[in-house]
Amino acid sequence: MKNVYIIGTGLIGGSFALDIKALKSDVVIYGIDHNETHLNTALELGLIDKKATLEDVKYADLVVLAIPVNATLNLLPTVLNLVSEQGTVVDMGSTKAAICAIVENHPKRSQFLASHPIAGTEFSGPKAAHLGLFKNKTNIVCDVEKTDSKRSEEVINLFESIGMRIRHMNAKDHDKHIAYVSHLSHISSFMLGKTVIDKEKNESNIFDMAGSGFESTVRLAKSSPEMWTPIFQQNKANVIETLEEYIHNLNHFKSLMESDDFEAIRKEMKNTNHIKTILKGIS
Amino acid sequence: MKNVYIIGTGLIGGSFALDIKALKSDVVIYGIDHNETHLNTALELGLIDKKATLEDVKYADLVVLAIPVNATLNLLPTVLNLVSEQGTVVDMGSTKAAICAIVENHPKRSQFLASHPIAGTEFSGPKAAHLGLFKNKTNIVCDVEKTDSKRSEEVINLFESIGMRIRHMNAKDHDKHIAYVSHLSHISSFMLGKTVIDKEKNESNIFDMAGSGFESTVRLAKSSPEMWTPIFQQNKANVIETLEEYIHNLNHFKSLMESDDFEAIRKEMKNTNHIKTILKGIS
Repeated sequence: MKNVYIIGTGLIGGSFALDIKALKSDVVIYGIDHNETHLNTALELGLIDKKATLEDVKYADLVVLAIPVNATLNLLPTVLNLVSEQGTVVDMGSTKAAICAIVENHPKRSQFLASHPIAGTEFSGPKAAHLGLFKNKTNIVCDVEKTDSKRSEEVINLFESIGMRIRHMNAKDHDKHIAYVSHLSHISSFMLGKTVIDKEKNESNIFDMAGSGFESTVRLAKSSPEMWTPIFQQNKANVIETLEEYIHNLNHFKSLMESDDFEAIRKEMKNTNHIKTILKGIS
Repeated sequence: MKNVYIIGTGLIGGSFALDIKALKSDVVIYGIDHNETHLNTALELGLIDKKATLEDVKYADLVVLAIPVNATLNLLPTVLNLVSEQGTVVDMGSTKAAICAIVENHPKRSQFLASHPIAGTEFSGPKAAHLGLFKNKTNIVCDVEKTDSKRSEEVINLFESIGMRIRHMNAKDHDKHIAYVSHLSHISSFMLGKTVIDKEKNESNIFDMAGSGFESTVRLAKSSPEMWTPIFQQNKANVIETLEEYIHNLNHFKSLMESDDFEAIRKEMKNTNHIKTILKGIS
């Protein structure tokens, strides 16, 4: 692996570039980004060694797509068309089913590995990139049997070398489960932020009353709409299902309050305290 | 101020005791707790100097109620009955209207100051207590005009000495606004935790997929049901109002998804990104 092309020089692509450079001194990192400002910033910050254009991926040993998932859907078939036999292509998007489907019958399907590193934060862009972002994070590799085994082994070794745990899953199961443990959290957070802002926008000092609990719960409402809109679009059916169950649970909580059944409310919370044990495995 | 009685030797009461001891070496801190284990732990950890019983508050210069708000509602009139003329009583509960109402016509009302330090976390009990919990936190002091001004001045000076910012508000406004910036966050978090646990309880490895975003959003679901149930009970009307608006916003988001209006979804998120500016004032 000598020539690595990073498409999308933001938080994920830029951090991955830094990890590769720290690991392999002989690799040259090329950056591709439709946002010229981001690309120049990535070069100035040393995330990438050189700027490149899409056509250059024919020289690549590895191409990494770290762009919003609608852009991946558009670009991935073109990138596969362009790469030579030596090139392996990996994507890092938060949805997997639509992305895997779009290249299902592509003649170079075996040169592509679908992955989702669970490492995003509420920050984005090249300035948010930093060495070590992926350390101790999980990477869900999907439909690995459709990738040439020598290529998947090489990329997975790279992921493991920068500190990631690998989990295997099929693309459809990935999208179903990630809707619960990631996508729903973002909607819950955005709508909480909206509810409070709508109500309190004319109360200038009201946010003095907000503590670290509020901050934690609305943290994800700082996330990039450009990144998240296409995620919700591609995972529409699963996300709507999670939203229905969440709204049902909120309505149930409200009806318990309305009927003054606070013992049932205490039990609901007690049962959910079990999340403590679950979260121990994350942090 | 020489004899301070802390009723409830958990996170809030225990941390406040530590701050007072660090500030005033001649003060003796007495602990009162119906949970004998907590009381002994508080003594072992040095949060308090001596154990005491409720009747002893007649010797107090300052009595601090740091217990669940239903317990405050029960105990506060008794504590006011017991204290001598030299005693000042302050509570630290998360609701204020019901607590202020219960002592509205108490002959010693002017000896009581209602306060709400916004310093709670998802942890509780004496082991969670630590020096400096209140530093740079806001304390909402309610209906201050009903407290004897020399007493309120003394307690507010103490709050400021341990690093708190003071905001004044009437008790009803406090409960209305705190429902948005604190109580709703807790329900949102508990119900998110419930939704995910209910769906994923048989999927043993699924929480490997959860990242720091999920952790942040469900953090408050670790909170104590014993503390939060009476808060929701006392602030029922306001909390139901916030829940209705939150559920309305979630339903609207869902209907935009169902009608494939992802441009409107992008705009909803963009508008809520404004939370970034608001949160800068908190952290």
